[in-house]
Amino acid sequence: MADNLTSRKQDYSQWYNDLVLKGGLAEHSDVRGCMVIKPYGFALWENMRDVLDKMFKETGHQNAYFPLFIPKSYLSKEASHVEGFAKECAVVTHYRLKNDPNGGGVIVDPEAKLEEELIVRPTSETIIWSTYKGWIQSYRDLPILVNQWANVVRWEMRTRLFLRTAEFLWQEGHTAHATKEEAIAETVQMLDVYATFAEEYMAMPVIKGVKTANERFAGAEDTYCIEALMQDGKALQAGTSHFLGQNFAKAFDVKFADKNNNIEYVWATSWGVSTRLIGALIMAHSDDEGLVMPPRIAPLQVVIVPIYNKDTEARQKIDDKAAQLVKELRAKGIRVKFDNDDTSRPGWKFAEYELRGVPVRIALGARDLENNVAEVARRDEKTKASTSLDGLTDYVSNLLDEIQKNMYNKALAFRDASITKVDSWEEFVSTLDGKGGFVAAHWDGTAETEDKIKEMTKATIRCIPLNNEQEAGKCILTGNPSTQRVLFARAY
Amino acid sequence: MADNLTSRKQDYSQWYNDLVLKGGLAEHSDVRGCMVIKPYGFALWENMRDVLDKMFKETGHQNAYFPLFIPKSYLSKEASHVEGFAKECAVVTHYRLKNDPNGGGVIVDPEAKLEEELIVRPTSETIIWSTYKGWIQSYRDLPILVNQWANVVRWEMRTRLFLRTAEFLWQEGHTAHATKEEAIAETVQMLDVYATFAEEYMAMPVIKGVKTANERFAGAEDTYCIEALMQDGKALQAGTSHFLGQNFAKAFDVKFADKNNNIEYVWATSWGVSTRLIGALIMAHSDDEGLVMPPRIAPLQVVIVPIYNKDTEARQKIDDKAAQLVKELRAKGIRVKFDNDDTSRPGWKFAEYELRGVPVRIALGARDLENNVAEVARRDEKTKASTSLDGLTDYVSNLLDEIQKNMYNKALAFRDASITKVDSWEEFVSTLDGKGGFVAAHWDGTAETEDKIKEMTKATIRCIPLNNEQEAGKCILTGNPSTQRVLFARAY
Repeated sequence: MADNLTSRKQDYSQWYNDLVLKGGLAEHSDVRGCMVIKPYGFALWENMRDVLDKMFKETGHQNAYFPLFIPKSYLSKEASHVEGFAKECAVVTHYRLKNDPNGGGVIVDPEAKLEEELIVRPTSETIIWSTYKGWIQSYRDLPILVNQWANVVRWEMRTRLFLRTAEFLWQEGHTAHATKEEAIAETVQMLDVYATFAEEYMAMPVIKGVKTANERFAGAEDTYCIEALMQDGKALQAGTSHFLGQNFAKAFDVKFADKNNNIEYVWATSWGVSTRLIGALIMAHSDDEGLVMPPRIAPLQVVIVPIYNKDTEARQKIDDKAAQLVKELRAKGIRVKFDNDDTSRPGWKFAEYELRGVPVRIALGARDLENNVAEVARRDEKTKASTSLDGLTDYVSNLLDEIQKNMYNKALAFRDASITKVDSWEEFVSTLDGKGGFVAAHWDGTAETEDKIKEMTKATIRCIPLNNEQEAGKCILTGNPSTQRVLFARAY
Repeated sequence: MADNLTSRKQDYSQWYNDLVLKGGLAEHSDVRGCMVIKPYGFALWENMRDVLDKMFKETGHQNAYFPLFIPKSYLSKEASHVEGFAKECAVVTHYRLKNDPNGGGVIVDPEAKLEEELIVRPTSETIIWSTYKGWIQSYRDLPILVNQWANVVRWEMRTRLFLRTAEFLWQEGHTAHATKEEAIAETVQMLDVYATFAEEYMAMPVIKGVKTANERFAGAEDTYCIEALMQDGKALQAGTSHFLGQNFAKAFDVKFADKNNNIEYVWATSWGVSTRLIGALIMAHSDDEGLVMPPRIAPLQVVIVPIYNKDTEARQKIDDKAAQLVKELRAKGIRVKFDNDDTSRPGWKFAEYELRGVPVRIALGARDLENNVAEVARRDEKTKASTSLDGLTDYVSNLLDEIQKNMYNKALAFRDASITKVDSWEEFVSTLDGKGGFVAAHWDGTAETEDKIKEMTKATIRCIPLNNEQEAGKCILTGNPSTQRVLFARAY
């Protein structure tokens, strides 16, 4: 199976596509830029969603659902917001089809034109804040801590499965607060939730930081982000949490009476992660044999493959043992499958589950049973060991934890080795062109310099890390004074 | 609180709206026909979704996700399908906005017109079967048992919260099979899943049946349905499961090689339930005091309301006891809230939780504690009883089961009493105009008669019940011979 895969060295981009397609995660649809998320990919997303949803609820949030459509005039109410999204909007203009009087099938009925066009939501700040206006009168109505799981549409011209698609799935939190301090605390809290999720569940180390004004969400006062590093040395923004100030409250006239009966505008945050995370997951961990799934969110954690011979009595013994193992592993909450499909051979199955990144594979043959052992293979290190059947479920359970840790540590070591401090333009360019990764460099703080660097090198400032050390230095491009290093990288 | 509610007798339709709005389930949005599902309503939907999702997975189905948009030409590939949906389609024609050169804000960019218009999915048979074409070559690829949770859009002109909205949330199962028999068995199996869910979780009895040709899903060979009865005597279609024959396989040219290498078209089913079920739930159980939630899916099952006096020591004792009860109830998996909010009085809270339909309310006062009792009120019967604190959690747990059963039995008794056999046109009309409900009558089996009856009385054939008794009779309208009774009703 791996023979059909492109290797990372050969063509990184093709390797990624191969994994998504052949790993059974997703495929292109007939609709430009829209993907089909296949059952295996969707099971992964469900696991990610369930963990995040629990974390949101534990931090006091509730889910709700707001309309898919946004009246065109709503988008315009926050000036920089419409600026950011206008160029990639799917626009609904009509509400009916009719038979073509000239016999050409169905056509759009010109008489069913909407008075005001509707935008398919690219994000929901506007429709939500127009709703919050009705929910908020006094400080007693605050905070509002709401999240929505939804599909959104941004009409991207160049799309890639999971990483950049016209339609994608995500969650968007939208909270309303009485004070600036509380809103900022919420923004930071949700960034921490995302970082914890990325590191503890996706086994993907991230750097927490703040975006520069250039890279801010359209309509935000401050955008906090987590940045991850892919194996090709490019960065990927894995989640953002925005402090929106009073921008949307002002745009939609949402005010509240505080305890002293003063009328104030409400403070806002929004925060989101999307199916893009699946792209990050693939590129952070997978190898030339296929996907490598972190156990905690893997759709399937353990697969048991029987090695049958012609002896039917031995076959029955293998089946019985496998059934017992499945039962014991499930009792521990482990997602396990016994693949006794006779139409494919063990070797084919080994390659298939390797491709799909199943963390642990147990092979059970007649001779194994006689020796009271099974062959246990781990996907992350591609090692296997003959293991006693006594206490096998505990062994597997511990092994899953061990794999989760090992994947994180490997990714962390790679990431840490990929942060390079540079102090000259030459070093800056040669690092970007050479090992890639994050380049920690001084920058003079102007949007102009940032734009020039991007134009010259395609590198952007990924973030100003939180708790950054203050350090005097000179901007790598202009030589102007700087007080701290920021992280540059080429990025997805 | 109940004082502000319209009663069912006064104005049934306004009563329903009051419950949805004041009960905090949903509200109208600024987008025509689209609703906002509020946190309390969404928590209810999550509970319903989680139960159904588990039932789908236990019957071998997996979730996946298909594009929101459907190319216009795809809809047309199945003739009766496009006929059924063309008149209510939201159509995307452009993919960009731009600044109005005349300074009027943003306008649709006329240069960003799509070559082919996209329809926002009203249902996904077409986009899914165009995808299945790539998934199915041989019998080994079958069956495909896939479900999708999604939003869909049907441009309804007259909308009502939950019952009929332009956008709604639903699940749609789409399965592919090698044989007709297997597809029909799947259709019936999923109807049974829906009936079980309606009866055991929603406490809402349903009649399983088959639709007449007139009422069939656009593109189906047979539509199976579950029909429920609302308190005003009108019926409501609560779920449908369609046997699609080979219609979509033929429209999208999806064939497979069977074991003998014969090439055949694939057999299909689809089945769905939606947020409409929430409307059914409200109208099946609620009363003039507000919502009545069946315990098994209630967002909140138990609320504890403290009755404080000025004695702070007594207050502490109440708080301690409440904390202990919350802990014990949660340990039993019961959704419970201790409402110690000081800004509202116990009487206000009682009315509020009554309005929201919380099944069990526990009031805890200082004197109660002295007597080792609490006042336990059940929402369904509006009775309350002083109950010993010893073993209270077991008592409450049993009470929740008892309420669930009682709600079902009450609804069942009402439904059974609302099925009237009639044998003349006069009786038919007077029953519809009088007690309403289901009218079991003979019908000559023609679409023409069905249409006439609908025109004259607004009653439709809700279904031909499964396992219907054969009985010779005469059509109530035409007097033509009939072999069985069918169920007529006015319906939502």
